Amino acid sequence: MSTWLDVPDEHPYGIDNLPLGSVRDAAGRRFAAARIGDRAVELTHAGQYAPLFADGSLDAFLAAGPVTWRGLRALLTDWLTDDSYRRSVQPLLTPLSELTPVLAFTVADYVDFYASEDHASNVGRIFRPDGEPLTPNWKHLPIGYHGRSGTVVVSGTDVRRPSGQARNPDGSIRFGPSQRLDIEAEVGFVVGAGSAPGRPVPVSAFADHVFGLCLLNDWSARDIQAWEYVPLGPFLGKSFATSVGAWITPLDALAQAWVAPPARDLEPLGYLDDSAVPSGLDLQLEVSLNGTVVSRPPFATMYWTPAQMLAHLTVNGAHARPGDLFASGTVSGPERDQRGSLLELTWNGSEPLALADGTTRGFLQDGDEVAITATAPGPHGPIGIAEVRGRIVAS
Amino acid sequence: MSTWLDVPDEHPYGIDNLPLGSVRDAAGRRFAAARIGDRAVELTHAGQYAPLFADGSLDAFLAAGPVTWRGLRALLTDWLTDDSYRRSVQPLLTPLSELTPVLAFTVADYVDFYASEDHASNVGRIFRPDGEPLTPNWKHLPIGYHGRSGTVVVSGTDVRRPSGQARNPDGSIRFGPSQRLDIEAEVGFVVGAGSAPGRPVPVSAFADHVFGLCLLNDWSARDIQAWEYVPLGPFLGKSFATSVGAWITPLDALAQAWVAPPARDLEPLGYLDDSAVPSGLDLQLEVSLNGTVVSRPPFATMYWTPAQMLAHLTVNGAHARPGDLFASGTVSGPERDQRGSLLELTWNGSEPLALADGTTRGFLQDGDEVAITATAPGPHGPIGIAEVRGRIVAS
Repeated sequence: MSTWLDVPDEHPYGIDNLPLGSVRDAAGRRFAAARIGDRAVELTHAGQYAPLFADGSLDAFLAAGPVTWRGLRALLTDWLTDDSYRRSVQPLLTPLSELTPVLAFTVADYVDFYASEDHASNVGRIFRPDGEPLTPNWKHLPIGYHGRSGTVVVSGTDVRRPSGQARNPDGSIRFGPSQRLDIEAEVGFVVGAGSAPGRPVPVSAFADHVFGLCLLNDWSARDIQAWEYVPLGPFLGKSFATSVGAWITPLDALAQAWVAPPARDLEPLGYLDDSAVPSGLDLQLEVSLNGTVVSRPPFATMYWTPAQMLAHLTVNGAHARPGDLFASGTVSGPERDQRGSLLELTWNGSEPLALADGTTRGFLQDGDEVAITATAPGPHGPIGIAEVRGRIVAS
Repeated sequence: MSTWLDVPDEHPYGIDNLPLGSVRDAAGRRFAAARIGDRAVELTHAGQYAPLFADGSLDAFLAAGPVTWRGLRALLTDWLTDDSYRRSVQPLLTPLSELTPVLAFTVADYVDFYASEDHASNVGRIFRPDGEPLTPNWKHLPIGYHGRSGTVVVSGTDVRRPSGQARNPDGSIRFGPSQRLDIEAEVGFVVGAGSAPGRPVPVSAFADHVFGLCLLNDWSARDIQAWEYVPLGPFLGKSFATSVGAWITPLDALAQAWVAPPARDLEPLGYLDDSAVPSGLDLQLEVSLNGTVVSRPPFATMYWTPAQMLAHLTVNGAHARPGDLFASGTVSGPERDQRGSLLELTWNGSEPLALADGTTRGFLQDGDEVAITATAPGPHGPIGIAEVRGRIVAS
């Protein structure tokens, strides 16, 4: 099953991975592609699947469902491992260095969860120091909220510092550029096949609906958020931009990554019972700020699993649509260097991080660049989850 | 300017109104239409505008912007007032009784505000009886949050009672059909022309982006909402369904409806200053439950105006897209019979409403039907804002 390309099986983007995305070439032409090594394989003429990629996005392909997803994956595997395809496939390959990624799919509804116990506990300790770290509902249900789908951007897109209202320590209100601009290192799940209205998706049907995952940075303006979020939740503190990785790794590439989630302190209600199959994912994230690794959040520590998130999201009868994106919330582990936000890493700015260039950071400065990468266990070596990268530009 | 149709100028859907929508005929064919009286005027062949309606929705037309909106309105006015068009326009008319409304546009992002001081104060008194009715931020900014665009449905669509988690009075958690299903009578604003990322929309540019408005019922499961909403806001308590009126009244039909908003207790920050032009809207809503009028909420009492909502929504750099829908939040006036939710009308179920059939209601029962209608001042009589209607079906 090795590829005839110069990409070893153990390469993070080797034959076991084959994430999908959408790119633009130097002439401005957009097309859908799979990634192998540092090349894109154009899908515009992928046999019976070609019509699904006619608009250059993954939209129609995602909506087509699991049989189609597996069919294309089998075709790509044949193309890249059977030497008899070499002559016909070679012209479909383009170095990634000659391409610009584009948002691969049209985001329908974007939902953000809050599924890391360590993250939620840290936030509770920072913002509500006199209360319990977790709200009473936290271990009963995966808390989530809807975010802005129109400002989801692909990795590499600059992020403009947002302006907004915030409260000064003396209680007065100021308006201006956010002074506490932060990241949230998350994993996003991409719904392909929708569900029917009124029919909740059981945890066991997760893979019938979710095509794959990507890394996600839920940029957050902490000062704007703190002033606006009571009682209806985050709004302008997060709606200015959400970055996603350019390449979506199919669940079919992650068979080795499923693990048991952490022990639950409360037995989940029936519709959240995920004990039948391993529903956690052993993704190891890494967060870099201007090239300095500042954190290594372990996704396997997440209290609520992605299958539980989708089950909860639909249990009230709301249906999922092709292109729905739901994210895990900040991934933080129990250790200090496993926290997925600067809020936690610097304890609300009070313990600045030291970067390799000798400077320190509480929150993000203009020009700062954040990259989040991740790997998952694979059959021949770690599977790469495509980085999500973004640079802050002045407001 | 009277029409040659048997529709007097003072008819709520007379020549001054001309709201737009999308319908399906008995054969299943979908087309975009304007409404006059109780007829639809098909737009499929509306001269130079025809290509914008090719898919039967208003999507492309909305995105085309104000010059196009006014151009079509002028064309329709000519068609319906100049007797020489009678022969060519007659075949384009269909009685509404032969048509089924369809959601007129693809909802991009759906945002719900909380802009009525009377509503927010009532909710505060009910849920936080020991605190201040309004949160400290309320008079500084129009509080809002993102809702689920995928479950926005057109008037007439049945609404299935949602199931979910809720907390019993003894603190235990139950799962099952909502026992406190409610309405929220609101006004929704439909963005046609989008804005550029990073460029906030000033209050003065409201009409350059917003095509028109519709009535909206933000169905709410109060028991689910109360348990889930701290700290990240409403989620499953509202995401199961949001109903909108079938016909969108253009702002161009509402020139007589602009009024000064209520006096503000705090001077708004510069980007929210709407003092240059009347920015309130004198819409008179009416809420019926199984045919009994239970409330007449006055939109003119809203503290925050729609132009302020759009300015706030974009002030952080988030852009508006064609098809964005933002709603006012529950419209409640100062009087008891002007409240826009059963939560307020029955004071959380403690003071049931008497209906004409002799029954009483705290919250909604299966089979209940809610209709919200509204009028606005027009040059020849009240302009009708199309009703939003929905019936509860068992979970």
